[in-house]
Amino acid sequence: MTLVETEAVFLRAARGEPVPHTPVWFMRQAGRYMAEYRALREKYTLLQMCAEPELAAEVTLQPIRRFDMDAAILFSDILLPLVPMGLDLEFTAGDGPVIGNPIRSAADVAALEPVEVREDLGHVLEAIRIVRRELDGKVPLIGFAGAPFTIASYAIEGRSSRNFLETKKMMYGAPKLWHTVMEKLTDTVAAYLGAQIEAGAQAVQVFDSWVGTLGPDDYHTFVFPYMKRLFGELARYDVPTIHFGVGTSSLLDLIRDAGGDVIGLDWRVRLDEAWEVVGDRGVQGNLDPVALFAPRDELRRRVLDILDRAAGRPGHIFNLGHGILPGTPVEQVESVVELVHAYRPEERS
Amino acid sequence: MTLVETEAVFLRAARGEPVPHTPVWFMRQAGRYMAEYRALREKYTLLQMCAEPELAAEVTLQPIRRFDMDAAILFSDILLPLVPMGLDLEFTAGDGPVIGNPIRSAADVAALEPVEVREDLGHVLEAIRIVRRELDGKVPLIGFAGAPFTIASYAIEGRSSRNFLETKKMMYGAPKLWHTVMEKLTDTVAAYLGAQIEAGAQAVQVFDSWVGTLGPDDYHTFVFPYMKRLFGELARYDVPTIHFGVGTSSLLDLIRDAGGDVIGLDWRVRLDEAWEVVGDRGVQGNLDPVALFAPRDELRRRVLDILDRAAGRPGHIFNLGHGILPGTPVEQVESVVELVHAYRPEERS
Repeated sequence: MTLVETEAVFLRAARGEPVPHTPVWFMRQAGRYMAEYRALREKYTLLQMCAEPELAAEVTLQPIRRFDMDAAILFSDILLPLVPMGLDLEFTAGDGPVIGNPIRSAADVAALEPVEVREDLGHVLEAIRIVRRELDGKVPLIGFAGAPFTIASYAIEGRSSRNFLETKKMMYGAPKLWHTVMEKLTDTVAAYLGAQIEAGAQAVQVFDSWVGTLGPDDYHTFVFPYMKRLFGELARYDVPTIHFGVGTSSLLDLIRDAGGDVIGLDWRVRLDEAWEVVGDRGVQGNLDPVALFAPRDELRRRVLDILDRAAGRPGHIFNLGHGILPGTPVEQVESVVELVHAYRPEERS
Repeated sequence: MTLVETEAVFLRAARGEPVPHTPVWFMRQAGRYMAEYRALREKYTLLQMCAEPELAAEVTLQPIRRFDMDAAILFSDILLPLVPMGLDLEFTAGDGPVIGNPIRSAADVAALEPVEVREDLGHVLEAIRIVRRELDGKVPLIGFAGAPFTIASYAIEGRSSRNFLETKKMMYGAPKLWHTVMEKLTDTVAAYLGAQIEAGAQAVQVFDSWVGTLGPDDYHTFVFPYMKRLFGELARYDVPTIHFGVGTSSLLDLIRDAGGDVIGLDWRVRLDEAWEVVGDRGVQGNLDPVALFAPRDELRRRVLDILDRAAGRPGHIFNLGHGILPGTPVEQVESVVELVHAYRPEERS
């Protein structure tokens, strides 16, 4: 297989075209479970690693050197755009984000600075250019951003949240303010992803990680219009888009309608049943990240079950249902990549 | 309406019989949002309040005095049965449970003591007797227990968890051990709920609060048989049973098949659509607890939407989709109770 053909497997699957093997990559594939990542993290903070293009590029490439992944994903953080908007972002010991000045009032929202992506987030774009150069066509590079809802939830709560109390209080109690926040974040995310594509990202994933806290009616009112607009704006670029969320079992039809060439699935749905809802789009997923801690035979059984449920239909990208957990054994990651690549539906009974 | 008729509204709805108005109660209706609860909590720990029958009874009755609730629910904690099993249970400042000696190994599981409910949890049964006497037929009393999965997850993790890593590691890596744990907990929960009913509980709710972390196949393998057995054993008592979980959108058909006269719904599903899945059983829910922080008009709109979706079909018990959050304004709770009671579907356009 030539280099260009290798690069094409992920991209072709993302476009729903037939591929010689199911492509695989893992959310957070560059992360704390890898010794080479931890070695760098001892010297730099998470924000330093995101802000320094050479470091971000190096970390992005670590899993590509170690495993036979079908795509690289830029090492970055979904909350970076909040920094030029004027929010004080820090990461605490457990890598949890904390925002010192969360947005709660109309004045807070009015004070949000517009983001000039090429200036304010130029380091991310530079990292993309370095990674593309280093990859040299070996595998494609995925860019990404947080979805407006998920970024907004951090900006409003000031940290990770279980109940999203402040976020929903704004939605329900100050809907105009909520819509202003979502307008601003949608503009920012659209410009950010557009710039990533122009810098060389060959696909983009939108992480609406926490949107599963909403029921379908709230999703439709408070999130859907912005996701629809976002994917509409991305449609003018010739790159596949992936739309991902967790705990979205009751939202999949709306997520599909909002947009994305590929819909990310967590592990709470059976892949084939969810694909029925997703319809003519591709699907990405859906191994439980904890399955990587299972004995090899049990892990194998779970991987094959997912592949069997996707078999015979182009458009499946193998992935986890959420990011790799710290402490995941690297040899388990390796074995899943091998298993996915070796899988041939016609050899299954 | 006579006292007996008042008592009957909740119980009749739970049995799927027609009622003059939709009954309403709130999960955690006795809790930190009430000043009279906080006053007691200043003097006693959570565990003291659970262990002392007079205190548990007093707290159980607080929301009944304050609001026109259609049912009382015993003030207790789902983790109490772990104490006589030999686990060191504490509650930290934020009321989060911490278990000093979580169960991880076969030796840990073998060391679990069998529970003699009448001896070890006699204080709970005594609280039930006091509450029944005090209620004197005003409203019925609901007993409850944690479901085996949810109790197991705390016993194994040692605290609340986002990823349920240790729990799933045992499931996937030591399934025999997992099944032993579930056997023991199912025996305990069945005996505990049976004793609560014999002490006077007029309905019982099983809280499988965290089971939504599982996909349907894992639920079917690792949880379903125990829930099926549990509800089978409860069937010999003549009291309605409620089966509740959060984030269960993709599990509702299995939860229905496992058992329960009434299925609890969180706020991530539309009540009428979920009821289609639940079929001939009743449903309980499904207001987002955060809606109680919304402006009165918005709260009203959300309550009426749920009532409209349930209208014309007996078997709906109004409730939240999860427990009341600390900080919830009491007057909002009051207004929901009034609104639910005043609702007449024939007066809606």
